[in-house]
Formats: sequence, C-alpha cells, structure tokens
Amino acid sequence: MRTIEWIDGAVVIVDQTALPQELRTLRLTDVDELVDAIGRLAVRGAPALGAAGALGVLLAVREGRRRGWSEGEVAAAIDRLRRARPTAVNLAWGVDRAASRVGEGAEAVEREARAVLEEDVAANRAIAYRGADLVVELCEQVPPRDEAVGPAGLSLHTHCNAGALACVEWGTALGVVRALHERGAVRRVYADETRPLLQGSRLTAWELDHMGADYRLVVDGAAPSLIARGLVDAVVVGADRIAANGDVANKIGTYPLALAAHRTGIPFVVAAPESTVDAATPDGAHIEIEDRSGDEVVGWQGRSVAPAGARAVNPAFDVTPADLVTAIVTERRVVRPAAGERPA
Amino acid sequence: MRTIEWIDGAVVIVDQTALPQELRTLRLTDVDELVDAIGRLAVRGAPALGAAGALGVLLAVREGRRRGWSEGEVAAAIDRLRRARPTAVNLAWGVDRAASRVGEGAEAVEREARAVLEEDVAANRAIAYRGADLVVELCEQVPPRDEAVGPAGLSLHTHCNAGALACVEWGTALGVVRALHERGAVRRVYADETRPLLQGSRLTAWELDHMGADYRLVVDGAAPSLIARGLVDAVVVGADRIAANGDVANKIGTYPLALAAHRTGIPFVVAAPESTVDAATPDGAHIEIEDRSGDEVVGWQGRSVAPAGARAVNPAFDVTPADLVTAIVTERRVVRPAAGERPA
Repeated sequence: MRTIEWIDGAVVIVDQTALPQELRTLRLTDVDELVDAIGRLAVRGAPALGAAGALGVLLAVREGRRRGWSEGEVAAAIDRLRRARPTAVNLAWGVDRAASRVGEGAEAVEREARAVLEEDVAANRAIAYRGADLVVELCEQVPPRDEAVGPAGLSLHTHCNAGALACVEWGTALGVVRALHERGAVRRVYADETRPLLQGSRLTAWELDHMGADYRLVVDGAAPSLIARGLVDAVVVGADRIAANGDVANKIGTYPLALAAHRTGIPFVVAAPESTVDAATPDGAHIEIEDRSGDEVVGWQGRSVAPAGARAVNPAFDVTPADLVTAIVTERRVVRPAAGERPA
Repeated sequence: MRTIEWIDGAVVIVDQTALPQELRTLRLTDVDELVDAIGRLAVRGAPALGAAGALGVLLAVREGRRRGWSEGEVAAAIDRLRRARPTAVNLAWGVDRAASRVGEGAEAVEREARAVLEEDVAANRAIAYRGADLVVELCEQVPPRDEAVGPAGLSLHTHCNAGALACVEWGTALGVVRALHERGAVRRVYADETRPLLQGSRLTAWELDHMGADYRLVVDGAAPSLIARGLVDAVVVGADRIAANGDVANKIGTYPLALAAHRTGIPFVVAAPESTVDAATPDGAHIEIEDRSGDEVVGWQGRSVAPAGARAVNPAFDVTPADLVTAIVTERRVVRPAAGERPA
C-alpha cells in the first residue's frame, strides 16, 4: 500500500490524521480538496508533498477540462496548490515538474506525475541503503557507548515521521532505520512524540510497530538528555528544505537534537531526496518558516489544556545550521556539511 | 493564598492536577495521603516539596499519637515521605529539618515546619530581587537582539513551573520574572508547555495570566530555535537539585534550552533556594533521575495517542552541565558555574 497514489482519476491518500486508530484512505478529485488535505496535514512529509504537488497538477488539468476553466483558471489552481505550505521545497518542485507538461496535454502531465512517484520510491531505496552503510561507518568511528544497555546493535534516535507515511512508500530517515533493521543492526529506536501534532507517537510508532523494531517513545524535551546520557548512537532525521550551504529545515524540535548530538560527539544524519536540496536558497536565514495556528498547542483534540485565552506561537519547522550536520544522504551522494562540504 | 499551608491540624494544598480549569484545595491529615499527593504531583516543585516534607513530619508525629504508633512506626512513615520522589533534594532536606525535632515533641516539630515555610517565602523574595538585578546586568552585557519585535523590555524564556505554585508563594524562576514584570522590564515571556504533564501550559500560563504579563506558550521542541532566532534575551529556570560542581537537575527539557542559550550567547540563569544545593552530590552523574510511567507519554487525559502497546521512557528530569550555567541565584548569593565558580 502506498501513502499517495493515482487511481481511476483521483488522488488517493492515507489519511494521516486518522492514524494510529484507523487506517483510512481519502479519494480526492478536486484541486481544492487536495489543498485542504495538505493544509490540515492529512498528507504530509516533504517527499509525499512532492508527489502530491505533481498529482495535484494533473487534478487541476482534468478539473479544468471538466468545468471548462480558462488557461488562467487552471494556472490559478496550480498556484494555490504550490502555495499550500511554504517550507517544504518538494511541494513546489513536484508542482513545477508536472506543470511544465501542461502545454502538452493531460496525458503528458499524468506521465510526468507518475514518474515523480516512481522516482520517489526508487530514491527512497537508494537513500536507505546508502544511509544504512553511512550510519554504520560513522558509528564505527565513535567509541562504543553504554554497552550495558542490552544486546549489540545500534541505538538510533529519530524525530517526527520521515517514514513510508511521509513518502510514497518506504521512507527516508525511517527508511534508513528500516534498512538497518532488516540487517539486524538495530538494538533500539527512540522516537520523539513530536508535539504539537504527535507525528512521532501516531505515525512513526505505527511504522516501527509494523516493522517489528524495539522502540520507545519519548517527549521531545527528553531527547537531548538521552543523547547526553549515552543511550543513542546516532540521530537520523528527514528534511523539508536543505539550503545551498547545508543548513537544514526540518520539523520543529530537530535543532535541539543536533545541538545534543554535536556536544556528545555522535553523528547527526539527514536523509532526504535530491528534490529537498534548494540551490536557490543560500542558507537557513532565507527559508520561510511556516507559522501554524496556536490552537494546535493550547488545545488537544478539542479540549483546552491552558487557561482560557492563552496564546501560543507555533512555528512548524526549525533550522539546523550546517556545522551541526554530520552528513546529508540522498539517492545520489553523501554530503558532509560539518566538514565544510556544500550540497549546492 | 499559599500553595501549601498548615491549617487546623492538616496540610492544605492547592491541587495542581486540577488547574487551570479549577482552583481546588486538598486537606490532608494522614502521611500516606501526602505521600500519594506528592507522587501524583498534586503538590510539586522543589521548594514546595521542602515545605511538604517538613509539614509531613508533623503529620507523622500527630498521626502516630492518634493511632498509637511506636517510635519505629513514626520513623517508617517519615522514611516513606522522604522517599516519595528521588530527584528534588529539597524534599529530603525539609523532612530532615523537621525530623530533627521529633525528640522534642509535636510543638517543636510544628515550629520547625512553620519556619521552613516562612523561610521559603522570604527566600523567594530575596531570590526574585537579586535575580531580577542579575538578569538585567547580564542582558546589558549582550548586544540588543531583534529590537523590531515590539516595545522595549526583556524577552524571557522559562520552562515547567518554578512559580508560586512550585513554592509556598511568589516563586523562584517565575519569581524573578514577576519582580522584573513589576518593574515594567518585561516585554514578553515565552513558556514551554512542558510535556508530559504540561506544567507550563497549565500552571505557568495561569500564573502569567494572573500577573498580567504578555506571554506565549510554545511546544518544548520549539524553544531552542526561538532562542537561535534572537527572540529571547535570557532563559530563567528553577532547579530540583544543584550538585556541588554546579551541574543542575531540573524538569526534563531544560538541558536543550541551556545548549541553545550557550550557542546563541544569551544568559542561562537558575533561580533556586540554598536548600536545592546538595553539597553531598559531587556532580550531575551522581543525581538519581526519577523515571516516571510511560503512560504519561503515550496517553493524554486518558486517551491513547500512540498505537496499542506502544512503550515510552519518561525521565522526569535532565542534568544541565555546569559549563552551560551562566549563573545560579539563591537567597544568599550569585554563583557563576560557567566561569568556574562552584556552589559547594
């Protein structure tokens, strides 16, 4: 089963707001249904947003034909889609790839969008196997930590969900974990719950559970001290945008993991497809950070947890500076920003 | 109104599990009622636990007289109280102070316990005023940050609740904020929600709201990037135990704030009474960290947020190494661990 697919004239997605309680799919036939699904994170994760962007252009072209839209109306729909979320560069990248075929007709757009999905699946596998080799290599360079904890194998820490649910299938950061798990090289996975929307508790835990990995959830604030206490061999996360200098935007709460990994001397590895690298963004200061509603912080499933009228700020992403990033692994290469290498 | 008081033969506490929805008090007349209230955090916060420890000994002595306990039974009850939570040294300190008077009778124990409470109130005021002066002095030493945000004044970040609700009244870290707010020197306060039990959203927000301060809640993972983005002038937190070398145990999620403050070059200030300094603990590695139930992480007000059977690790505290602690302010002095000064 894929997280996002094109089936019989519709974009079919796994509704990520319903997990882990229910595995439910949504069938979207209008562009604005997809824009809404992206906004409320029914589909999320940078690579999946790339696929959604490409398939959304196909929806726009078909909807335009059905409703008799002008070229300008189709272009406006594509633009709404492109701006549905600002931080992950993959969304705009997927939109632009498919949109470049609009002049050639719906069939050409469909071929391009399907290619985006197939390439994502292939890229994920390549990232996972290269990333697994890289993590083993990097961990061999640091002295063994806390061998008393249990059987041999690596103890990995991840944040948010950069798994199959964030991609078309398989996953990026969690794909690396999956590849290592298949080799029997994983002792334990620590996963941050990832407030405010709990993608770690809801989605990553669900994937790790299906994978059969030994995992533990932790609150986001606990992760840096687990690292300091020697319980973690390497941190592996995804990315929503990688600037030309190697600064990495990822889900809020990633930066403290990088700070702790740096101080403790363990590798901090970013796993992402090449489409996440944005050569047009020179550094992290130029990445637009999406501010989401404070209601996600002060409320919980409709119940307020704070005093009436309490306000929150809710940035969805943070930026990890390049000097804290041990390595970025993509489907094509390994870049080492902390050693001065630039991804673009 | 005080967070903890001795009224007509009972320990009366503000039930902190009911806030912010309801301001409710609990009347405790048996030692084991108090031990239970401490365990489920109906009374919490290092200084308040010192008061609870002292008053709990008085409960033990009176309950022993009422029930005809032997000296050994009274001593066993005092020991249960002393071990109700392991990390905050103030609990054992308060118990030991009052217990030293048991041989002199209930009236002597009552005098000692009342003295612990009065001294806490006085210590809080002294910490607050000295801490306010210190924060202003430290912030004058760093270049102004992000003046575009709003009117003049300091932007402060705090974690968990080190306010009136964590003490007998007034507060330690939040007491410093309160003193600065009364001087008109606070522009904004950022407060971490503080998962898993949301003492920030429930208790600190409630106190800041009553204080009339301009505050914003944030998820714990967001704090380090707000600091990196220049939105915070100083971090001010409390402590549950301060080791002789200046390592500080405090609520889980404190350490990442210290890492971010250090990297950004803003002050990281710890406000705590002298009773939090534990000369018998040489450094942070010797502080016992309480592991609480994983249910606090995977469930949310009784509803599971993770897949069935998901497990969590839930350390209640972390340790911030002395070299990241700009200053510790107590009722007697300022100690600067990052500059090599030792509190004991």
